[in-house]
Amino acid sequence: MLTGQEYKDSLKDGRKVYFAGRQIEDFATEPALGVPMQVAADGYDKHYSAEPGAVNPLIDGPRSPEELRDKIPVLMEMDLLLNVTYQSLMTLLVAAPRIEGVAPQFVERIHAYVADAKARDIRITECITDSKGNRSKHPADQDDPDSYVRVVDRGPDGVVIRGAKMHISAAALGHDLMVMPTKNMKPGEEDWAICAAVPVNAPGVHITNTTYHPYGRDERDHPTSARESVPDSMCIFDDVFVPNERIFLDGQAAQAAVFAHSLGLWERLGGTAFMVEQADELVGLAQLIAEANGTAKISHIREKIDEMMIHATLLRAGLEAALLHAHETPDGYFYPDDMYTNVTKFQGAAQFSKMVRHLHEIAGGAVLTAPSMSDFDNETLRPYLEKYMSTGDGVSGEYRTKLFHAIRDTTADAYGGWHHVTNIQSGGGLFAQRLVTRRHYDMTRAKSLALKAAGLAGD
Amino acid sequence: MLTGQEYKDSLKDGRKVYFAGRQIEDFATEPALGVPMQVAADGYDKHYSAEPGAVNPLIDGPRSPEELRDKIPVLMEMDLLLNVTYQSLMTLLVAAPRIEGVAPQFVERIHAYVADAKARDIRITECITDSKGNRSKHPADQDDPDSYVRVVDRGPDGVVIRGAKMHISAAALGHDLMVMPTKNMKPGEEDWAICAAVPVNAPGVHITNTTYHPYGRDERDHPTSARESVPDSMCIFDDVFVPNERIFLDGQAAQAAVFAHSLGLWERLGGTAFMVEQADELVGLAQLIAEANGTAKISHIREKIDEMMIHATLLRAGLEAALLHAHETPDGYFYPDDMYTNVTKFQGAAQFSKMVRHLHEIAGGAVLTAPSMSDFDNETLRPYLEKYMSTGDGVSGEYRTKLFHAIRDTTADAYGGWHHVTNIQSGGGLFAQRLVTRRHYDMTRAKSLALKAAGLAGD
Amino acid sequence: MLTGQEYKDSLKDGRKVYFAGRQIEDFATEPALGVPMQVAADGYDKHYSAEPGAVNPLIDGPRSPEELRDKIPVLMEMDLLLNVTYQSLMTLLVAAPRIEGVAPQFVERIHAYVADAKARDIRITECITDSKGNRSKHPADQDDPDSYVRVVDRGPDGVVIRGAKMHISAAALGHDLMVMPTKNMKPGEEDWAICAAVPVNAPGVHITNTTYHPYGRDERDHPTSARESVPDSMCIFDDVFVPNERIFLDGQAAQAAVFAHSLGLWERLGGTAFMVEQADELVGLAQLIAEANGTAKISHIREKIDEMMIHATLLRAGLEAALLHAHETPDGYFYPDDMYTNVTKFQGAAQFSKMVRHLHEIAGGAVLTAPSMSDFDNETLRPYLEKYMSTGDGVSGEYRTKLFHAIRDTTADAYGGWHHVTNIQSGGGLFAQRLVTRRHYDMTRAKSLALKAAGLAGD
Amino acid sequence: MLTGQEYKDSLKDGRKVYFAGRQIEDFATEPALGVPMQVAADGYDKHYSAEPGAVNPLIDGPRSPEELRDKIPVLMEMDLLLNVTYQSLMTLLVAAPRIEGVAPQFVERIHAYVADAKARDIRITECITDSKGNRSKHPADQDDPDSYVRVVDRGPDGVVIRGAKMHISAAALGHDLMVMPTKNMKPGEEDWAICAAVPVNAPGVHITNTTYHPYGRDERDHPTSARESVPDSMCIFDDVFVPNERIFLDGQAAQAAVFAHSLGLWERLGGTAFMVEQADELVGLAQLIAEANGTAKISHIREKIDEMMIHATLLRAGLEAALLHAHETPDGYFYPDDMYTNVTKFQGAAQFSKMVRHLHEIAGGAVLTAPSMSDFDNETLRPYLEKYMSTGDGVSGEYRTKLFHAIRDTTADAYGGWHHVTNIQSGGGLFAQRLVTRRHYDMTRAKSLALKAAGLAGD
Repeated sequence: MLTGQEYKDSLKDGRKVYFAGRQIEDFATEPALGVPMQVAADGYDKHYSAEPGAVNPLIDGPRSPEELRDKIPVLMEMDLLLNVTYQSLMTLLVAAPRIEGVAPQFVERIHAYVADAKARDIRITECITDSKGNRSKHPADQDDPDSYVRVVDRGPDGVVIRGAKMHISAAALGHDLMVMPTKNMKPGEEDWAICAAVPVNAPGVHITNTTYHPYGRDERDHPTSARESVPDSMCIFDDVFVPNERIFLDGQAAQAAVFAHSLGLWERLGGTAFMVEQADELVGLAQLIAEANGTAKISHIREKIDEMMIHATLLRAGLEAALLHAHETPDGYFYPDDMYTNVTKFQGAAQFSKMVRHLHEIAGGAVLTAPSMSDFDNETLRPYLEKYMSTGDGVSGEYRTKLFHAIRDTTADAYGGWHHVTNIQSGGGLFAQRLVTRRHYDMTRAKSLALKAAGLAGD
Repeated sequence: MLTGQEYKDSLKDGRKVYFAGRQIEDFATEPALGVPMQVAADGYDKHYSAEPGAVNPLIDGPRSPEELRDKIPVLMEMDLLLNVTYQSLMTLLVAAPRIEGVAPQFVERIHAYVADAKARDIRITECITDSKGNRSKHPADQDDPDSYVRVVDRGPDGVVIRGAKMHISAAALGHDLMVMPTKNMKPGEEDWAICAAVPVNAPGVHITNTTYHPYGRDERDHPTSARESVPDSMCIFDDVFVPNERIFLDGQAAQAAVFAHSLGLWERLGGTAFMVEQADELVGLAQLIAEANGTAKISHIREKIDEMMIHATLLRAGLEAALLHAHETPDGYFYPDDMYTNVTKFQGAAQFSKMVRHLHEIAGGAVLTAPSMSDFDNETLRPYLEKYMSTGDGVSGEYRTKLFHAIRDTTADAYGGWHHVTNIQSGGGLFAQRLVTRRHYDMTRAKSLALKAAGLAGD
Repeated sequence: MLTGQEYKDSLKDGRKVYFAGRQIEDFATEPALGVPMQVAADGYDKHYSAEPGAVNPLIDGPRSPEELRDKIPVLMEMDLLLNVTYQSLMTLLVAAPRIEGVAPQFVERIHAYVADAKARDIRITECITDSKGNRSKHPADQDDPDSYVRVVDRGPDGVVIRGAKMHISAAALGHDLMVMPTKNMKPGEEDWAICAAVPVNAPGVHITNTTYHPYGRDERDHPTSARESVPDSMCIFDDVFVPNERIFLDGQAAQAAVFAHSLGLWERLGGTAFMVEQADELVGLAQLIAEANGTAKISHIREKIDEMMIHATLLRAGLEAALLHAHETPDGYFYPDDMYTNVTKFQGAAQFSKMVRHLHEIAGGAVLTAPSMSDFDNETLRPYLEKYMSTGDGVSGEYRTKLFHAIRDTTADAYGGWHHVTNIQSGGGLFAQRLVTRRHYDMTRAKSLALKAAGLAGD
Repeated sequence: MLTGQEYKDSLKDGRKVYFAGRQIEDFATEPALGVPMQVAADGYDKHYSAEPGAVNPLIDGPRSPEELRDKIPVLMEMDLLLNVTYQSLMTLLVAAPRIEGVAPQFVERIHAYVADAKARDIRITECITDSKGNRSKHPADQDDPDSYVRVVDRGPDGVVIRGAKMHISAAALGHDLMVMPTKNMKPGEEDWAICAAVPVNAPGVHITNTTYHPYGRDERDHPTSARESVPDSMCIFDDVFVPNERIFLDGQAAQAAVFAHSLGLWERLGGTAFMVEQADELVGLAQLIAEANGTAKISHIREKIDEMMIHATLLRAGLEAALLHAHETPDGYFYPDDMYTNVTKFQGAAQFSKMVRHLHEIAGGAVLTAPSMSDFDNETLRPYLEKYMSTGDGVSGEYRTKLFHAIRDTTADAYGGWHHVTNIQSGGGLFAQRLVTRRHYDMTRAKSLALKAAGLAGD
């Protein structure tokens, strides 16, 4: 296993990473990359074992409904990079039996890759969304055939791929990019049916970074984003060679979606659990700021908090139902129910902005205008700020100011915007959740209830 | 046990029942009473056993989470009068140990009453909501002290009560009225702390009836309400004598709410399960009418049905979570979790009218204007109606017309209005559900999440 | 002009009208038809003038924005049958110049028909919506070519039409049916491009009736529907001959929609004005019942009423904007702006059920269970009802009961359901309103604002 | 009048302004202050006239409904600092006659001050919201009497004030702070009834700054906020002396709210007009990005844009109604109707986050992850970005990327969060808008409609 320092050193491997138009050699010099790198390094140190042959124990799939449930607090504590690594390896393991029949040669490679990745203690990020070009056309029909990542050359030792993948969280901070198709391909689109593990420093890989990290601002004014924000990347594959042992699908158009579907099983649990946790956090912020403002007993404030609690509890019910109806893969792994998970995500995403609106209405305008913690450092200002940000009754100015910063940082500043969009877009957008529901809902039963109501039950 | 006919005969006992301003002697002459009486009679016949000493087996509380879950389809099949009888008896049994310490004399009476009620196979309805007078005043402070049912006289053999109870479903069709206080009373309000079983034909009892039954209309145009609607009553107690053996609480102001709370445990499961079933039924109606109209593949129609499915599934998740987190009474009965049940009811009630709006938009104006089934009986009209209500493709005019009637009957006619209001008001209105949530939600955990987000976790 | 009695006599003209499967000869014997007939008769008496050559002065289109605005209270007072007659004549007059170029022969007929209709003081209803068959196919492509009303034969003196029209309010109570196509036709669909005035008693015309009138119930329990509900009809045209002088379009496929569009101009004002009035009425009911319940000062009750007021005012703003931006036809008639009217209807329809939910939550369960006014007639019951429906403070039991009946009748009983569906479906459903908005919104301006925000204003 | 440069020089007057904990001497060195200073300077240059005695012509109140309407595009073009200066002067002029009766000495001072301010061409910001302490207590009852700004000393030449004002936009960039009470005071609270113009550089004034300006980021990635964001301030008054000629109210507790109410008249028009404009801008962004993504014809995308158009049009209707029903002050100034303005603000604020959710769902995840414009500057990256951000069909990668930046900057980044909160909080929060509606709505008319519906019209 690697220590945090060994991890950080491992990133100096010639990778082509860009931020704000500049290529970055040493991430430590660039807080938007350096801070999340340090968070990942802390994760390494937390799980480090010097024992030879040790592997990270968290990277194991749940083997029973109870293990599935116990996994939730573990996922909540993991750093993002470890979490996506876990998801990537589970994705491969669960996909393997599904492609065994049509393309048996890949199964052995998968098991070898997983064993090696565990042994080397690497971090892996998932590359799914293509640049896509015109959304109304198929990969093979695009003006630019590279709109979806594809194989442009094949040789005895491997293939050459070209294209770009979008919205890759923490891509620059991992070791491998797990490239997989976003959907099933049609006959004639074999070149777009490629799944492979590409080292971040492979020649031809270029990684841009956008960030919601508060670099250049006082971290105390951004108590959550300074800790949790990771950069999002576009990963460009400019004729990148991938050796055979890292190729897990190549040309099986009808199986192209197997990996993305498998990933969905593992991605979902953490995503839903996070959404439930986030809803509870919003309730807590609302209650604390109402108490600090002296408004916690005002009727219309209480009712808004009531609605936030009802929302959070409804999401939790969705998670509970998904766990209760867990399903088992052929290999004996357990994953939460698709239908309940999707419905929960839909509800959470659709109502998020209304809950935030309630929080903002409860908190008041100081969400935007509370002084910076650095203003509290100023000897002239500090007494004024303590005096005027306090509301009496033992509510200190600094305490109340920190609450405003937490609210602003998570809901009304850059990282809040990130949440707004991510809640909607993760898992494919609200529309995708509708489609999943449409597929899984028991319409036959619903129709029979309706026929009975119409006195047509015999029909 | 009683046969259906014996039950019907048993109602001719001198009771004072009114409908449309007239006192009704023979319910069979008045469809608004006669039809639901027949439904109850069918329930008797269904469960009848001639074996001596037989009792209805459905009237037993669940003794494990599995029995609780298995109870749901049973409740869905029961007629309403049997259902409320079951609830009434369970209410008494579960309340008994809660009042044992303060008023032990009532416990023995309860057990004797329950045994007798089972043996006689009677039906019991619950009388909770008082006429209430001014909602902002307590019982003892009302202009009229009878605004809440109270004891106006006490003797060695029993008490005399006065007042009125509102919104009593099927009161005129049962044998006993289970009168209980709607809430805890304050010191000095002992006279309002009265719980007792009053025979429907006791002197001084008067029962008005309002109905959403389609009497005087073609029952085929009201396929659901003609079968399921029962009258709602105001039960007036004009100095009614109640003998001691039928009194289960008298003067214990601080325990006045025990019975209503106990009832809540049993009422809730059926109420929530019904709401989930209703949501699925609406989905089924929407899908069937869209198919019959030839619009099931139109994008905006599909999306509305998607939203209805998501709604139904979210409610089902709430029910699942409530069952998963079932609680046990001291006597070993199992009931669903308060918090999840309330949240589910809130969501179901709050969103019901929006789901109905979707259904109406999908179905179109013929919800209102589809011809009556009696028009189909007319030899001149029938060929026209078959021709013009059909949409081709094997969708017959009569089939499609029946779907419109089912939609109208359950959502856009009298009984639909009844659903709109009942979904909101049952269990105390949306506001009551907020209060329950407020009481049960784990705010401590939510606050600690918020403090952590604010970097104040140590505080 | 006709007196009310003359009008009633005029309906005994051999027309084939059906209700509940029976053909009805004398409407006075059937309250569902007789009561609205009497309302129409009262309208005749109200405007009657014995002066020779007198015509109803209300039937005149607005000639200025001020007249347009002044028309609103007039429309609110008119009975429905007079209102649709007014709309029908204005529809013809405004359509005339639009078809003059392509089919000049019809213009003269229109003017003659309008003059005659005024002189004879007849009532005219509009027949637009066809039975339609499969919604995804054009008229000529239907399994049954009669799915849209069409000409099946032509002779020197007139044409023969066949088909059925749906959702015709008060068809059985007028003298003429104004048949017009629902949309433009394609080349080859000339036979479906037919506009004509058909006498109700023409051979081959059959009229079914469905009703939301509370026939067979106590009218006092239905204070609004007993007065305002009119029957809706399916009008069947079984090879009906129409003489030339009553044909206003025949075969001009590309002009088929001219009449329906023209009608839209006149229909819209009343519809929107009614919706605004209805929203204010709901506010008033909410406030009155809250006061009667003693809850008008409770915070969550007030907030719900606030929301209802905001809703009503927003609708009124939409009406004001539509009037402010009135447009003029080539002939100098003024009609309200399409865009603002549609947006107002959309908002009113989309939010109606939520406002009703607020009202129900404010009012409480007695919306459903308040005793009938006929119960108040019963000498035994009346004192009880007065006592227990009162809330003290001078709120009499009867007064409060009447408020509950008004709320139930307009929102939670049959006629309430009619409103729910009609608000959604009138003017073509929410989806139709979207399409109109899409057509009229100034997207060019919106795009230029967006380009400016993106720093792309020069593009 | 002043040139831009003279304005910038005028700010170097010893004022105590802080940013990020540091006192700032030269704003030009600090982009968060320097950029908005330059925007204000550009405003000076735009209106500059060298003519002696010239004054800015924009600073004049509307004298007719037409002038009121014409003022809207003028306000949309003004820089914020000029806008609030205009509002401040109009506030004083309109307040003057309202205090003339009780405190005539202030009227003359007001006119002198306004004339001087125009002549010196200064910029004035408004200081209303106090730090407030515990929201449930009155000013005189707070633990800290300085929770509301108050007079702590009075002398022959002036008064000394103490306290803090919150949420002051651009305070550090103007010349005078117009301090006024936030509400009416009670007897005994005369010291809190103080209105005065305080120079920003008066001894004892300290001004903190928080900003949503993208300082330290590439301005091209923030096309709107880089131009429009101004800092918000807390203005601390630590025993600041104000000479008599700058005091416009002192001790008239019952008139304390006159200035805030007067300000409301002028603030409102711009606020509402901006909200309407913002709604149209969101529509434009949605349409442009849908076109660029190739999704503009997909049904569910179109429907979301429809809803956004309907929303924007409904807001515009509210503005139109407010202008149509403009009111006149005693002095002949025209201001928009309170009721319609408030309803429009409520609707705009309440629905804003839903409209943004639609926009985000239409745009997709690249709202968050589109590469920076500085990445386009990189010679290696540029061809990749052009290739993969393009969607073919002439949609260039740079063009589409700029749209994403505009969407992110205005809705999903820091400045987007500022909009979210400001839309809710400006004008006092959604709850304040409810209260205004409650005050102005014609409840008498609504009740009479309800009584009529209940058949109680005579009561």
